[in-house]
Amino acid sequence: MFFYWLSRLYRGLSSPTGRTTPLVWGSLSRNLVLSSQRRIPEFSSFVARTNTCGELRSSHLGQEVTLCGWIQYRRQNTFLVLRDFHGLVQVVIPQDEKMPTGEIEIKVKTAELLNSCKKLPFEIKDFVKKTEALRLQYRYLDLRSFQMQYNLRLRSQMVMKMREYLCNLHGFVDIETPTLFKRTPGGAKEFVIPSREPGKFYVLPQSPQQFKQLLMVGGLDRYFQVARCYRDEGSRPDRQPEFTQIDIEMSFVDQTGIQSLIEGLLQYSWPSDRDPVVVPFPSMTFAEALASYGTDKPDTRFGMKIVDISNVFRNTEVRFLQDALSKPQGTVKAICIPEGAKYLKRKEIESIRKLAADHFNQEVLPIFLKANQNWNSPVAKFIMEEERLELIRLMEIHEEDVVLLTAGEHRKACSLLGKLRLECADLLEARGVVLRDPALFSFLWVVDFPLFLPKEENPRELESAHHPFTAPHPSDIQLLYTEPEKVRSQHYDLVLNGSEIGGGSIRIHNAELQRYVLAALLKEDVKLLSHLLQALDSGAPPHGGIALGLDRLICLVTGAPSIRDVIAFPKSFRGHDLMSNAPDSIPPEELKPYHIQVSWPADSETEKSPLDHPHHPES
Amino acid sequence: MFFYWLSRLYRGLSSPTGRTTPLVWGSLSRNLVLSSQRRIPEFSSFVARTNTCGELRSSHLGQEVTLCGWIQYRRQNTFLVLRDFHGLVQVVIPQDEKMPTGEIEIKVKTAELLNSCKKLPFEIKDFVKKTEALRLQYRYLDLRSFQMQYNLRLRSQMVMKMREYLCNLHGFVDIETPTLFKRTPGGAKEFVIPSREPGKFYVLPQSPQQFKQLLMVGGLDRYFQVARCYRDEGSRPDRQPEFTQIDIEMSFVDQTGIQSLIEGLLQYSWPSDRDPVVVPFPSMTFAEALASYGTDKPDTRFGMKIVDISNVFRNTEVRFLQDALSKPQGTVKAICIPEGAKYLKRKEIESIRKLAADHFNQEVLPIFLKANQNWNSPVAKFIMEEERLELIRLMEIHEEDVVLLTAGEHRKACSLLGKLRLECADLLEARGVVLRDPALFSFLWVVDFPLFLPKEENPRELESAHHPFTAPHPSDIQLLYTEPEKVRSQHYDLVLNGSEIGGGSIRIHNAELQRYVLAALLKEDVKLLSHLLQALDSGAPPHGGIALGLDRLICLVTGAPSIRDVIAFPKSFRGHDLMSNAPDSIPPEELKPYHIQVSWPADSETEKSPLDHPHHPES
Repeated sequence: MFFYWLSRLYRGLSSPTGRTTPLVWGSLSRNLVLSSQRRIPEFSSFVARTNTCGELRSSHLGQEVTLCGWIQYRRQNTFLVLRDFHGLVQVVIPQDEKMPTGEIEIKVKTAELLNSCKKLPFEIKDFVKKTEALRLQYRYLDLRSFQMQYNLRLRSQMVMKMREYLCNLHGFVDIETPTLFKRTPGGAKEFVIPSREPGKFYVLPQSPQQFKQLLMVGGLDRYFQVARCYRDEGSRPDRQPEFTQIDIEMSFVDQTGIQSLIEGLLQYSWPSDRDPVVVPFPSMTFAEALASYGTDKPDTRFGMKIVDISNVFRNTEVRFLQDALSKPQGTVKAICIPEGAKYLKRKEIESIRKLAADHFNQEVLPIFLKANQNWNSPVAKFIMEEERLELIRLMEIHEEDVVLLTAGEHRKACSLLGKLRLECADLLEARGVVLRDPALFSFLWVVDFPLFLPKEENPRELESAHHPFTAPHPSDIQLLYTEPEKVRSQHYDLVLNGSEIGGGSIRIHNAELQRYVLAALLKEDVKLLSHLLQALDSGAPPHGGIALGLDRLICLVTGAPSIRDVIAFPKSFRGHDLMSNAPDSIPPEELKPYHIQVSWPADSETEKSPLDHPHHPES
Repeated sequence: MFFYWLSRLYRGLSSPTGRTTPLVWGSLSRNLVLSSQRRIPEFSSFVARTNTCGELRSSHLGQEVTLCGWIQYRRQNTFLVLRDFHGLVQVVIPQDEKMPTGEIEIKVKTAELLNSCKKLPFEIKDFVKKTEALRLQYRYLDLRSFQMQYNLRLRSQMVMKMREYLCNLHGFVDIETPTLFKRTPGGAKEFVIPSREPGKFYVLPQSPQQFKQLLMVGGLDRYFQVARCYRDEGSRPDRQPEFTQIDIEMSFVDQTGIQSLIEGLLQYSWPSDRDPVVVPFPSMTFAEALASYGTDKPDTRFGMKIVDISNVFRNTEVRFLQDALSKPQGTVKAICIPEGAKYLKRKEIESIRKLAADHFNQEVLPIFLKANQNWNSPVAKFIMEEERLELIRLMEIHEEDVVLLTAGEHRKACSLLGKLRLECADLLEARGVVLRDPALFSFLWVVDFPLFLPKEENPRELESAHHPFTAPHPSDIQLLYTEPEKVRSQHYDLVLNGSEIGGGSIRIHNAELQRYVLAALLKEDVKLLSHLLQALDSGAPPHGGIALGLDRLICLVTGAPSIRDVIAFPKSFRGHDLMSNAPDSIPPEELKPYHIQVSWPADSETEKSPLDHPHHPES
């Protein structure tokens, strides 16, 4: 019902239109018939109107109604189309007693002009194209579009259903946690807030991680929160400095429990006009995801998986394959692009090879399989018949397919082919091939991540793959003391159509183990977390949780091109509010109570010009 | 059902107890009987337990259950009491086959110790008194108390009901607004956040006021949000630097509409174990509240109203009354304390007189009415018999009552007597008189506030009584251009038991009027609000809204002594998180990306010692 109204609105908004001026309309007919049936929700309770503009049907004929809305269209001061965000309705100002045609029309008794409207920077019609910078500058007008109304109303509905599921069906407690907190170890991306005490700062936390674990210690054994989080990553496209997560934590739970909870949550809150969510979601280890998709967030809506073809080439005469296989962890990998020869032009294949060379410093060999089952490739003549047949069998290669082959260290080769797989999918879809059905929602759990990764700046030191509170995999606990880099974690990611929409873990609940991980393995300053370690020592229950990225999830559900389209007042990619012009200057005397002053940089240090990023919405 | 479990927990926690160690318990009986009836909410879905510790009854006899909880009490390794936040249950470790007594008991099949527990700084028993500083330092232990569990779970329930009412019953849209915003005019209490652009700062907004008005312009005509708000007021008892409000805005609404909405909201979300909320709430003008209660937030649970007795003394011979009445706006006012002579000692009356003299620079005259209907007062002999009788009639004075009389300018006299009225109520209740029934919830709308107030530092200039977006009262619009100080506003406050729990207004939706108020009357820099003025010029609908202070409301509903008791992780009155030690120092190199440095004050400027406030929770 709700979305039906919105779709009426959508069609209506595409009609020719004039200024948008809010009005109250009243009408009277000779026969007053009042319907006693109430609709839930009641969109007209407490306000001046009796009905929304999208609600009236012939069953209302003869009723007296009061409408409030914007003038969408006016003809000869006789006919008007009145608009609100539920729909459109035609109004007639009586000239004589002739009854107009049409299913219903509203005959005006009194009309009051509530406000007038200056010339707008763009007309409120969905087909009028505007730049994103203009949309963000006049966000209050952009919000009147069908798409923004739909996105924000759907978001509200989905979050409400999630709350019903968690609170009413499963006994979770909605608890607010502070956003004025302190620096966490390694929290270099946290905004700082000077306090009135000299040199003392709050920070805006990246997540309620510590608080939700402390709530478990405090016996609030089923917590959730729709939590505002903050991350200062500078300029990053499609990231927001503040974002929202569905934050969940439970005591006495294991990985399976959290996964069932989330599957049920998404199933329950999923919009009813979409295909229902099928549970349980499939699961894949991190190792498998890397080997088959070259990423920890595989898009499983289509195939083109990575195949390890090292064994085919054990006795190859091709020099660069020989070289690769002679190194430790050396592999030969390939993906097969179905009908690639039909859709991909030579210049596209060349751009793919260039991408591999420029970004990955790696060579990619394209092989075209011709109708006569012969290879068309620079190295074709060096490939033995036996190898060719084995490759065709292994990779299920058909006529007109293209194979992209690379050689190198396992992780690097997979990662490269994973990127090329997505690149090729884009190219094929640009040619009209439907690989990724937009109506399809393909959920996937990725599990068994490594607990630690080598530090980029110093690979002999370890850092947490996710965060230092993640519990090790029960089978790998002994490895912590011998080969910590081999320990798998109890972390799990939820992936939807190739985007990570959530992640969580079973946490360490033993204070000794937590201290060992922090101090001995990660070399962190344990003092910063003394309150958490003390809490674990106070009878902390086993616990675990998850956080879903709400903005990204709604973005995928609505099919919006950017998370900015599912946030009422987003920041631009450079972190600006283009409407109000935040952030802004503050006079030095107003900084005094906070004991800070601005260190003005020398000219050379100033920020890059926004012209560096012509494709992004920035004034 | 829910609260019944909690009350069992409460009694249980008062029993003698040992360490608190989480355990999983399993049991097996010979006859396995499984109940197929599901309880909603399901508190044991997705986790290792089958039941909570508070749930088992004799109807479960014979079932196999798995419990998780903390050991509350242990005797001879045979009997244990297991605790969680739903209740307590006795567990017996079988020594022989003798069946124990009691309604039910759990016979252990397997038991697993999940974590151990070091010596705690205080025992988890409600009767153990702790200082608030200790409670805040070990908040994760304090949260285990009956009262904190009750408060936080009730808060979650009430907010959920509010959401159901707004979203599901009345079609409101839950929309998140940014917390990284820019300075608003006069926003001196806003925290600042340095950005990566030199000299540019975000601020944390005091409320989503501007955003919710912009949403109305954007056609999201029924908005609500459970909004985190920020106000930096330095050290203030019972205030928090971050707090939560139920934030609401509607288009095409008037004051009555908002009031009905809120009355319905509170009625719907009110806890079922309290007396139901009676609607509509009574209403009182600001002028009447000041005249009768000396405050804009009258506690209407009891009488002792202020009475204007100026006319009684028009021909008085008492000099100080003569003097007061000869001045413009001079009045004589009094309150009558029923049975005051019985309960108030002379030293208490003296302390009241001293309070008036010290804080209000004003004299208060106490008059005791003795059994023989004679006055007992320094001025008694100057009061004529006629005046005496008129006073007794006007104020309904009875034997043993005490009258407190003062003279002076109307507002000052009322304000003083308003304070004394509450002071006397405290004194009478300390003597055992029940004036304010703790089970009584007395709601009141206060309306018709002045739109402007004279500035304290320069009384010839005006400032907004609430905020500059408040619409003037329709009957007073012409006064805006002639005598703006006389204009009443369309602001309304919601008062509960003498505390302001909400406030809102119908807003200005006409850009010209808004510009006039900001520039001509308030002398504000209009540029800071140009986006809002432009939005009003774009066909803004008439709109209005309200915000309820959630922390204060839950505090009153639960009867908690402080809002810190209804917040999971509150700050101390000096804004410190005593558990994690926020705010904290940050190394200068981490401030560099934000182009700020600390201005260290000279020694003399450093903050006062916390010992200045010995009664407040601060380490």
